[in-house]
Amino acid sequence: MSNAIFYHAGCPVCLGAEQLVADAIDRSKYQIETVHLGEQADRIAEAEAAGVNSVPALVLNDQVFHINFGASIDDLK
Amino acid sequence: MSNAIFYHAGCPVCLGAEQLVADAIDRSKYQIETVHLGEQADRIAEAEAAGVNSVPALVLNDQVFHINFGASIDDLK
Repeated sequence: MSNAIFYHAGCPVCLGAEQLVADAIDRSKYQIETVHLGEQADRIAEAEAAGVNSVPALVLNDQVFHINFGASIDDLK
Repeated sequence: MSNAIFYHAGCPVCLGAEQLVADAIDRSKYQIETVHLGEQADRIAEAEAAGVNSVPALVLNDQVFHINFGASIDDLK
C-alpha cells in the first residue's frame, strides 16, 4: 500500500481537487490522508520538506503534484 | 464508466503527471485517454473548449485539473 497525502487549505480550488482525490485515486493501491494546513499549521514544515509550494497539492510516494493554483504556502504561515 | 482525458505535450513536467494518471487513477471507474497536443494539434480546440489553459491537465467528467505548470496552451498553437 502506497501513501497519498492531500494538503489543502479549505479554499474553493482545494474542494475541486479534493473531489479528484476522493473519486479518482485507486484506494486499493493508495492510503489517503487529508491535511488542512490552515487548521494544522504544525504540519506546514513537513509539507514544505516534501516540496509543497502551494495548495492544493497531492504527494504520491514522495512526488509532489500541485493541482491548479489555490494558495501559496507562504500565505498560510 | 467515467471518462478521463489527460492532455500533455511531452514535456518533463507532463511525464511526472502522466505517472500520476497511470498509477493512481482507479481504472475500474475511469476510462483514460492520453492526448499529446504537440503531435495532435487538431485537438487543441477541444481541449480549450473543455477549459484547458496549460498542460499537463486532466479532465475528469468535464472538470479540468491543471497539474503543476508545464506549458501554456498558447505555446502549442
